[in-house]
Amino acid sequence: MSHSLKSFASDNNAPVHDAIFQAMMDANRGDVIGYGDDLHTLAAEKRFKEIFGKYIRVFFMLTGTGANVAGLSHITRPYHAIVCSDKAHLENDECGAPEKMTGCKLIRLPSEDGKIRPVQIIPHLDSIGFQHHSQPKVVSITQATELGTVYQPDEIREIAGFARKHNLYLHMDGARIANAAASLDLSLAEISGAAGVDLLSFGGTKNGAMAAEALVFFNQDLADEFEYTRKQSMQLMSKMRYISAQFNALFSGNLWIENARNANNMAKILAERIEGISSIKITQKVETNGVFAILPKEAIEKLRRKYFFYTWDVRKNEVRWMTSYNTTEKDIDGFVEAIREALG
Amino acid sequence: MSHSLKSFASDNNAPVHDAIFQAMMDANRGDVIGYGDDLHTLAAEKRFKEIFGKYIRVFFMLTGTGANVAGLSHITRPYHAIVCSDKAHLENDECGAPEKMTGCKLIRLPSEDGKIRPVQIIPHLDSIGFQHHSQPKVVSITQATELGTVYQPDEIREIAGFARKHNLYLHMDGARIANAAASLDLSLAEISGAAGVDLLSFGGTKNGAMAAEALVFFNQDLADEFEYTRKQSMQLMSKMRYISAQFNALFSGNLWIENARNANNMAKILAERIEGISSIKITQKVETNGVFAILPKEAIEKLRRKYFFYTWDVRKNEVRWMTSYNTTEKDIDGFVEAIREALG
Amino acid sequence: MSHSLKSFASDNNAPVHDAIFQAMMDANRGDVIGYGDDLHTLAAEKRFKEIFGKYIRVFFMLTGTGANVAGLSHITRPYHAIVCSDKAHLENDECGAPEKMTGCKLIRLPSEDGKIRPVQIIPHLDSIGFQHHSQPKVVSITQATELGTVYQPDEIREIAGFARKHNLYLHMDGARIANAAASLDLSLAEISGAAGVDLLSFGGTKNGAMAAEALVFFNQDLADEFEYTRKQSMQLMSKMRYISAQFNALFSGNLWIENARNANNMAKILAERIEGISSIKITQKVETNGVFAILPKEAIEKLRRKYFFYTWDVRKNEVRWMTSYNTTEKDIDGFVEAIREALG
Amino acid sequence: MSHSLKSFASDNNAPVHDAIFQAMMDANRGDVIGYGDDLHTLAAEKRFKEIFGKYIRVFFMLTGTGANVAGLSHITRPYHAIVCSDKAHLENDECGAPEKMTGCKLIRLPSEDGKIRPVQIIPHLDSIGFQHHSQPKVVSITQATELGTVYQPDEIREIAGFARKHNLYLHMDGARIANAAASLDLSLAEISGAAGVDLLSFGGTKNGAMAAEALVFFNQDLADEFEYTRKQSMQLMSKMRYISAQFNALFSGNLWIENARNANNMAKILAERIEGISSIKITQKVETNGVFAILPKEAIEKLRRKYFFYTWDVRKNEVRWMTSYNTTEKDIDGFVEAIREALG
Repeated sequence: MSHSLKSFASDNNAPVHDAIFQAMMDANRGDVIGYGDDLHTLAAEKRFKEIFGKYIRVFFMLTGTGANVAGLSHITRPYHAIVCSDKAHLENDECGAPEKMTGCKLIRLPSEDGKIRPVQIIPHLDSIGFQHHSQPKVVSITQATELGTVYQPDEIREIAGFARKHNLYLHMDGARIANAAASLDLSLAEISGAAGVDLLSFGGTKNGAMAAEALVFFNQDLADEFEYTRKQSMQLMSKMRYISAQFNALFSGNLWIENARNANNMAKILAERIEGISSIKITQKVETNGVFAILPKEAIEKLRRKYFFYTWDVRKNEVRWMTSYNTTEKDIDGFVEAIREALG
Repeated sequence: MSHSLKSFASDNNAPVHDAIFQAMMDANRGDVIGYGDDLHTLAAEKRFKEIFGKYIRVFFMLTGTGANVAGLSHITRPYHAIVCSDKAHLENDECGAPEKMTGCKLIRLPSEDGKIRPVQIIPHLDSIGFQHHSQPKVVSITQATELGTVYQPDEIREIAGFARKHNLYLHMDGARIANAAASLDLSLAEISGAAGVDLLSFGGTKNGAMAAEALVFFNQDLADEFEYTRKQSMQLMSKMRYISAQFNALFSGNLWIENARNANNMAKILAERIEGISSIKITQKVETNGVFAILPKEAIEKLRRKYFFYTWDVRKNEVRWMTSYNTTEKDIDGFVEAIREALG
Repeated sequence: MSHSLKSFASDNNAPVHDAIFQAMMDANRGDVIGYGDDLHTLAAEKRFKEIFGKYIRVFFMLTGTGANVAGLSHITRPYHAIVCSDKAHLENDECGAPEKMTGCKLIRLPSEDGKIRPVQIIPHLDSIGFQHHSQPKVVSITQATELGTVYQPDEIREIAGFARKHNLYLHMDGARIANAAASLDLSLAEISGAAGVDLLSFGGTKNGAMAAEALVFFNQDLADEFEYTRKQSMQLMSKMRYISAQFNALFSGNLWIENARNANNMAKILAERIEGISSIKITQKVETNGVFAILPKEAIEKLRRKYFFYTWDVRKNEVRWMTSYNTTEKDIDGFVEAIREALG
Repeated sequence: MSHSLKSFASDNNAPVHDAIFQAMMDANRGDVIGYGDDLHTLAAEKRFKEIFGKYIRVFFMLTGTGANVAGLSHITRPYHAIVCSDKAHLENDECGAPEKMTGCKLIRLPSEDGKIRPVQIIPHLDSIGFQHHSQPKVVSITQATELGTVYQPDEIREIAGFARKHNLYLHMDGARIANAAASLDLSLAEISGAAGVDLLSFGGTKNGAMAAEALVFFNQDLADEFEYTRKQSMQLMSKMRYISAQFNALFSGNLWIENARNANNMAKILAERIEGISSIKITQKVETNGVFAILPKEAIEKLRRKYFFYTWDVRKNEVRWMTSYNTTEKDIDGFVEAIREALG
């Protein structure tokens, strides 16, 4: 099923940004060595160090799930536990890849807004030292969260401090970290490594790339031998230059943040346009590029005949509308009109 | 390290074929649903059915290792064993992903030419029924092999018959199946499903694509629920249209076989040009796009200063030279000249 | 740390029942073939069929965790999910063995009394058919539960019917199934296979044995090839006759139920003796051999100087006191006296 | 199938030695804390330190496969490779548990006598540093080997030195280490830790125990957090005192070596008695308690009607005859007579 109309289903329904496509095409000249030993990849690694600081190690990956899972499996042993939100992609949308690949238990903390707090982790530390229990070892947070909300730097630092104190690593699923940075008007480093994150899954795909994900180890010791885990996790692209070219384009000029800003702005505009409608209830703060809303079931069905999007919670008639780098105000106009029509 | 000169290191050092790139660009319009529910993917699936027969199921994957390993893990239980050649990619070049993901034991059969024969499997069937032993369940062959040789259809049928008789599945790693088809002047189906293969890893990447691999289940029962294994194996691309577009281009006209034919022809020409040189010994039949040769160590080193390629067996001074869809006769001329120079 | 006084920590703190020990000794004559091909094992298997019906398959295992995990791994694929109570041994006390061995996600349902209800499972069925989500495949219940409560046969049948309807298997962790049978005054079969259980982990160890666990497949199809999973799960005892002898003793006469009855009775007496004490609150129905109670923290500490037992919930000052086949009324007298002393 | 006659099938066909059984019975008094926090276990750990030196850590396990596999999984990551003999129990008789549990590749080195040499490992070190290849990390040797031969201390030291030099760990499968020590007239420490072994699977079961295996970490750093791996590997016995009691008996007086000596002597006598028979060819040095021999197929079948034993290599008509702590000269007399009869 393809749509001539803009999709509000997911930011990954968008095509590849032209500048990124152009960069891939520019890289499509002549033979280069595979598996990352090429100039495009060297350049992209350099960009990552400019952005995140030189004391990092970075590895390029094919999928967001791959980045999360390979990264987590590398920094854990199977008897460890990974603490995350009950809204986490890790917990809900990776078809059990974390359990299969890491062997770890996932400890899901209830969360209304997709964010977790240190106080919620405390009871689970009781397990530490008892041989019958999986041993908490990693806290994983998502920035921006699956619900479009963002962690303030202070919140991250608090979790990071808590993690460090209890000998836990802090992983950040940054599938939409660009949106969070845009929302907070902070650099990517300020909301990740500088705030205490040990390991970041950095996502380019939802921000206009074709398939470009990276693992950034701020804690470099943890990166030792990761090349083997990447390969064993089936995440090593042979023609690596094409991932690298995507990152080079994203980090050239301000493309990454412009893309994210547009997506965020469009969500904000969408929210503003509908928040006066009495039969719609917006359920989450619109801090990045998602709008979560409850509306009558019939309206949902009617609207879906025209636009594709996902029902987030079928029991609540809650939908998720995502905007992306290529959403325009005209798209919003059309969509809002369709919403109004659907509501009758 | 990038090279202005043609690489003879691997067929994956080549850029993406222009027509494939163009198809990806053509697909880069508007929003479409992710994860395969788009028209490009439907079209590509249709192409696969035209080529391999309508009673197949096909799934698109990101890497060749991913296709092999996810496929094998889906058709085995961890107490099974997978029989393959000691030259198999599965055994040597996937960093243990088969063991990690399937839990199975790999039984490696010695092979001089990369091919295995039923008689070699027989002794391993003694394990069947003994609870202490991994139970043989899959035979995996590579077509064309890692040594550039090809299985004749009769040879495949013989293995397939043997496998069926002993309740084993037959998997084919077809990372270079196009080269095999071109070499044998047979259709893709004739050397896979029609010859008794249950499960094929079909490779596009080494034949001019960017990253396009597929799993073709001829035995459709085995495909049940494979979508979950794909996702759990981190091989589900969100922007699936870009894999599909590559296949659509490969299968449009005769691109797939033209690419393979050129690669094969160039290897043949290379072999012909050097076979008269007394200090070079070609060690494998040149049936597809690889030339394996032994030459003096100093010559290898000297040649490598100019051209990048891999030493295949450091103990024998045996090298592997790969040609690809974009290798030209002029490239061969230059390379042969460099070889002669290196030999002094 | 060993205690001259009776332990109220766990029913596995008790020694082996004399009759069971005697049976092991009786089996300790002459050479027999290992791994289960011996007369003691044949006899024990026959006993299981007398008790559970002849259409079962039974396998002897070394540990309760081993039985649970090997059984569940055999009837699932890694992309499945296993639904259980948040109080389940599976979830809390197996150090992540279920995740590591099965690859599955565990879905923990909140439960005050250790029991789960079909209505709690319903929302999780929404995942079925979506490739991003682990697919629910097994419901696992514990009989008697980790909180000493029991499922009524009707409750089991309801869960079983629900499971069947939704194509889920029903697993029962029967580490204390004898206590449940004694409590309900029903046969072992009536509260397992006859009530719709597909797979039972049958526990002997907590009921007076040394180490005797079994997996009973009521759904015989599921047992196919389980011998390999047992071996691969490191649960195959070479000198199998010694497990078998334990079962032969347990099922000789009525030892199994007498042991369970005594344990249950002692818990009941303990509960009766303390329920009038105002500073103690019994928190769970005493249906089998555990008494859960809240009492002042200082009293807990004081009591522990004399008797060993576990704090169940440190945040609530809730303790767990377990009785066993060898607990006597005199033991209860002494313990109650110590409780009173501790309370001052 | 049980036999009134002595079995020559395996040393695990023997019953439990009376003194060991008595020790278990002596431990069968009163309640003690489970999972190893009891005086029997403390005493057994002390014995291990007396024998192997105080700078070890020891963990008790239920099965030999469990000890091997849990130990190896703890000291490896899934992208590692484990080098062993092609005759290793690890490779042949654990139903793929090593691959399933560790994720590692097993590299099997051809061996006629069950022993491996450093020179055989060298070619496999070529993989080190290449992301496509499993990384060799452990060398595992068996002492005494599966073929009844023994490593001289010098041979072990040579392998250990080689391993250390190449950053590999040395694991020893000591399922029959007592037989090796008896054969070499050396202490257990001299042929394990003192010779450079990092990790030893110490076997009691084949030497007269019921089920008593241990992991001895000479490299204590490697033992960190092993308690979790043991539990997750389903090898933690709740009523631990009964394993510990077996070790206490084995190490009380000289029982362990007396048992081993008797088994070895009986094998030597058996070999001496048959070595003059022209239709029998003894195929391995009889250094411990196994005799490997080739004899006519009909004779094998005839003999098996009376005595149970395993055919080792069906293609060669090679049998394995094992003696044990309880084999007597009279047993040998009867067996030799039966052999002569079978040979006609």
